Amino acid sequence: MDIDDLAKRILAGERRALARAITLVESGRADHRQDTLRLFEALKGHGKEALRIGLSGTPGVGKSTFIEAFGMMLTRQGLKVAVLAVDPSSTRSGGSILGDKTRMERLSRDPNAFIRPSPSQSHLGGVARRTREAIDLCEAAGFDVVLIETVGVGQSETVVAELSDLFLLLLAPAGGDELQGVKRGIMEMADIILVNKADGDLKTTAIRTCADYAGALRLLRKRPQDPDGFPKAMTVSALEDTGLATAWDTMQELVDWRRDNGHFDARRAAQARYWFEAELRQSLLSRLEREPMKGLVTAAGRDVENGTQTPSQAAEQVLARLEGRLS
Amino acid sequence: MDIDDLAKRILAGERRALARAITLVESGRADHRQDTLRLFEALKGHGKEALRIGLSGTPGVGKSTFIEAFGMMLTRQGLKVAVLAVDPSSTRSGGSILGDKTRMERLSRDPNAFIRPSPSQSHLGGVARRTREAIDLCEAAGFDVVLIETVGVGQSETVVAELSDLFLLLLAPAGGDELQGVKRGIMEMADIILVNKADGDLKTTAIRTCADYAGALRLLRKRPQDPDGFPKAMTVSALEDTGLATAWDTMQELVDWRRDNGHFDARRAAQARYWFEAELRQSLLSRLEREPMKGLVTAAGRDVENGTQTPSQAAEQVLARLEGRLS
Repeated sequence: MDIDDLAKRILAGERRALARAITLVESGRADHRQDTLRLFEALKGHGKEALRIGLSGTPGVGKSTFIEAFGMMLTRQGLKVAVLAVDPSSTRSGGSILGDKTRMERLSRDPNAFIRPSPSQSHLGGVARRTREAIDLCEAAGFDVVLIETVGVGQSETVVAELSDLFLLLLAPAGGDELQGVKRGIMEMADIILVNKADGDLKTTAIRTCADYAGALRLLRKRPQDPDGFPKAMTVSALEDTGLATAWDTMQELVDWRRDNGHFDARRAAQARYWFEAELRQSLLSRLEREPMKGLVTAAGRDVENGTQTPSQAAEQVLARLEGRLS
Repeated sequence: MDIDDLAKRILAGERRALARAITLVESGRADHRQDTLRLFEALKGHGKEALRIGLSGTPGVGKSTFIEAFGMMLTRQGLKVAVLAVDPSSTRSGGSILGDKTRMERLSRDPNAFIRPSPSQSHLGGVARRTREAIDLCEAAGFDVVLIETVGVGQSETVVAELSDLFLLLLAPAGGDELQGVKRGIMEMADIILVNKADGDLKTTAIRTCADYAGALRLLRKRPQDPDGFPKAMTVSALEDTGLATAWDTMQELVDWRRDNGHFDARRAAQARYWFEAELRQSLLSRLEREPMKGLVTAAGRDVENGTQTPSQAAEQVLARLEGRLS
């Protein structure tokens, strides 16, 4: 593969080259991994800093409709928008996101947009690394905004929050009781809560829901990375295209403040450290699958099964035998 | 601390010595860890093999009432019963289990019973190790049955299932729709489902719920460790003390079959390997907090924050520098 040519075409903003590079990043093959490292070497120092927007929402809140309407609004302003998905579910059923682009048909045909479904890979660690590298590729290809979306399933919100400059939580209008359904931990990640479907019969409910969430947000501890009035709750209607411009203004207001006050760069630095440590842990554990650890583990495992050693003793012993080399 | 004396008193079945030894096991102090290892050395080869029964149930199903009634029934038969709790929640609010023994007042005053609340430690790995060692201590102290209970919160059921010979799921009578509320993964762990509160107004509902679960269990894939008719669903009333004797007979029937067919020992062997591998992973990761890893990690983390290296590059480099010693 001509990596230098691929790099050149990515930097020229060619969507097909970008798609091909992401496929490379997603590959599990060792030679593709080498190509990937060479590609990033070639891209180093080029490209722009996109705004990375994380978006989470459970199935049924209208996430695809929102992304399409929001994305189209941005491209109309001349901005280049990429949409990536973090979907750790192996089944990819029901509300699962970008499995087909037909759900965002208009946006996918827009020359200033790039939509990439989540790879059919269920390991969250792998998905995170692939998404991280895909974001870098989108920045190299000159995208202004990278939307990283996930359906709310446990840990995937954390992954998305650790990959984005700004975290949006998209919610549906609901009765007060259901407010409880949003876990506190997820609320605490949100920079802006968007209550969607503020249209037709649901409009009144959406406004009340928004007020409820605004109240809930005020009860959270003030974070240093927020100017006054943030985190904020707002209503939007992706269907009727209302509130989206205000939401985008609000995002920019927040990001500008964070840039001016050093929080933007600090967050990216902290995220880089987070992913470094995550990769390190994962790589270290993968050593257990390789020699000489593998042989030691197999032998000790047999002792443990036979009952000649306790699990703790055996674990201590395996590490002690490596200790001379390891510690 | 006189470890030999402590061991002797545990083997004599002294509850106070058992309680003291579990406190030792729960301690994070390095000298206590050494004492623990010496204690297990002294106990090695002594003690009996208890029946380890795992029990999970969400708050409100009457778990404490069930354990008290079931435990009293066993002690009346002359059996010694220990109750341990796996509660990984740090808050210990609401339905949390053995926070106070007053919820099982009669059982806690029974000389043939031993009740130990979960330590106020939130790390699931630590809780698992402590519970594993507490089980061993209960066996050394001559207990016939060790009940390991947990409130259903995500991973804790897996921990309990991997610590027990038999896994009970305690459920409340409920409408058909709520059947969906029990996750498939939890259902698949259950050996016996007990629908509690089969008394008074709820009796009819309990019987119907039980039939629903029995139907759901029949849809699961047949497991090699089950004789015909298992996993099984039954109704009990902890309040009126009905169904408990039948449930106990059923447990013994299942365990006898598993013993006769080699599944009992095979499960304990597989569990030992499981915990060995879990300990090994945890211990290996803890090396990152110690020199020389710690220094390397700190330095590389700084590079990553500054942007002079990508997270993946830095992780690779740290491990490569250890490679000569490690791989």
